[in-house]
Amino acid sequence: MLLARVAGTVVSSRKETRLEGLKFLLLEQLGIDNKPTGGYVVAADAVGAGVDEVVMYASGSSARQTEYTDQRPVDAVVMAIVDSWEVGGNDVWQK
Amino acid sequence: MLLARVAGTVVSSRKETRLEGLKFLLLEQLGIDNKPTGGYVVAADAVGAGVDEVVMYASGSSARQTEYTDQRPVDAVVMAIVDSWEVGGNDVWQK
Amino acid sequence: MLLARVAGTVVSSRKETRLEGLKFLLLEQLGIDNKPTGGYVVAADAVGAGVDEVVMYASGSSARQTEYTDQRPVDAVVMAIVDSWEVGGNDVWQK
Amino acid sequence: MLLARVAGTVVSSRKETRLEGLKFLLLEQLGIDNKPTGGYVVAADAVGAGVDEVVMYASGSSARQTEYTDQRPVDAVVMAIVDSWEVGGNDVWQK
Amino acid sequence: MLLARVAGTVVSSRKETRLEGLKFLLLEQLGIDNKPTGGYVVAADAVGAGVDEVVMYASGSSARQTEYTDQRPVDAVVMAIVDSWEVGGNDVWQK
Repeated sequence: MLLARVAGTVVSSRKETRLEGLKFLLLEQLGIDNKPTGGYVVAADAVGAGVDEVVMYASGSSARQTEYTDQRPVDAVVMAIVDSWEVGGNDVWQK
Repeated sequence: MLLARVAGTVVSSRKETRLEGLKFLLLEQLGIDNKPTGGYVVAADAVGAGVDEVVMYASGSSARQTEYTDQRPVDAVVMAIVDSWEVGGNDVWQK
Repeated sequence: MLLARVAGTVVSSRKETRLEGLKFLLLEQLGIDNKPTGGYVVAADAVGAGVDEVVMYASGSSARQTEYTDQRPVDAVVMAIVDSWEVGGNDVWQK
Repeated sequence: MLLARVAGTVVSSRKETRLEGLKFLLLEQLGIDNKPTGGYVVAADAVGAGVDEVVMYASGSSARQTEYTDQRPVDAVVMAIVDSWEVGGNDVWQK
Repeated sequence: MLLARVAGTVVSSRKETRLEGLKFLLLEQLGIDNKPTGGYVVAADAVGAGVDEVVMYASGSSARQTEYTDQRPVDAVVMAIVDSWEVGGNDVWQK
């Protein structure tokens, strides 16, 4: 998984039938130091994350292992909202 | 998923039998700022996207989770035509 | 999928039993402008491609979705020989 | 698989139901020379690894092939604690 | 698949139960010109490869399509020892 900040949302009215009801979040990837790495991904939302929240997302077939994304053509899913992470015993980020 | 613009099409007459009937789109990847990143991918079309349209595509095994691509040797699929996306409450792109 | 040119072949006599009978092609990846990108991959051949031909290949689990590669430990397959591709209405490459 | 050092942990209270009970480790990737490469990944822990330990992790669908991660939306798992590795007959790292 | 040279081995005594009996090889990736690219991967051995041998490895779910790696948490497998490869009709490497 990678850490990311929810930057915004993507809207689509014409899409594959199996995608109905899914919310697509635009994620800015974060480094271990909580700084943006410059990369992004669009992920389906499985936890009700809001803009600016820090989240974890899973990619590939693992992105389909949630109730919301099962058997749907999505390759990234937000599966957790992050409370905090620490490196070497020190909090790098706390909600 | 990643955002992309449909740049063109790829034609193939000699191909694996299971690919019959699929349309292959040449996609230029877009950054979160709607600028081309320089990367590309060839994706099967599951939504009837046209040249110059902005789309989302899914990669890997998730690309086979549509009616058109099920059990076919394709690793990328256009699964949505994008209406708009926003970052920090502002529209970056609108159809 | 990505575009590539068949640069050569790889020969192996000592290999996993399930690989018997497969032909391995050395592919040079091509950009959308038909220039080599510097990357390569070794792919199983599912379409009888010859050296110098321009092809498309699929990666990951999708590489196993052909009659030749089903349940075999290969992560890339040539699944189409390319006739042509166009960008913005102009042919970039034609066989 | 890649080699990595456990740098810390990630805490999440609001997450996909199937993730309950999993521990998330923040891994700094190591090169073959035992130096950090600058990359990181968050992985589920299947072996009880502690901070500062050197581990191996598997990515993608293979990350779900453990008792702890089966059918869960995780794309990386720590599946081994490394005792040592050698290159050209010389130990590069030993526990 | 990618070409690689077996650089060494990785030893682990504390690991996921399903990994018992597998041998882990440290692979240095090779370019099409037989020069190291600087990248590496740790792969399970399905063919009895020795140090310094040139091999091919498969990644992702395809790495589990061998008798040795079936249903195990490994994402890379050495599935062939390479005899030779050629580019444009000339041998680049021969055993």
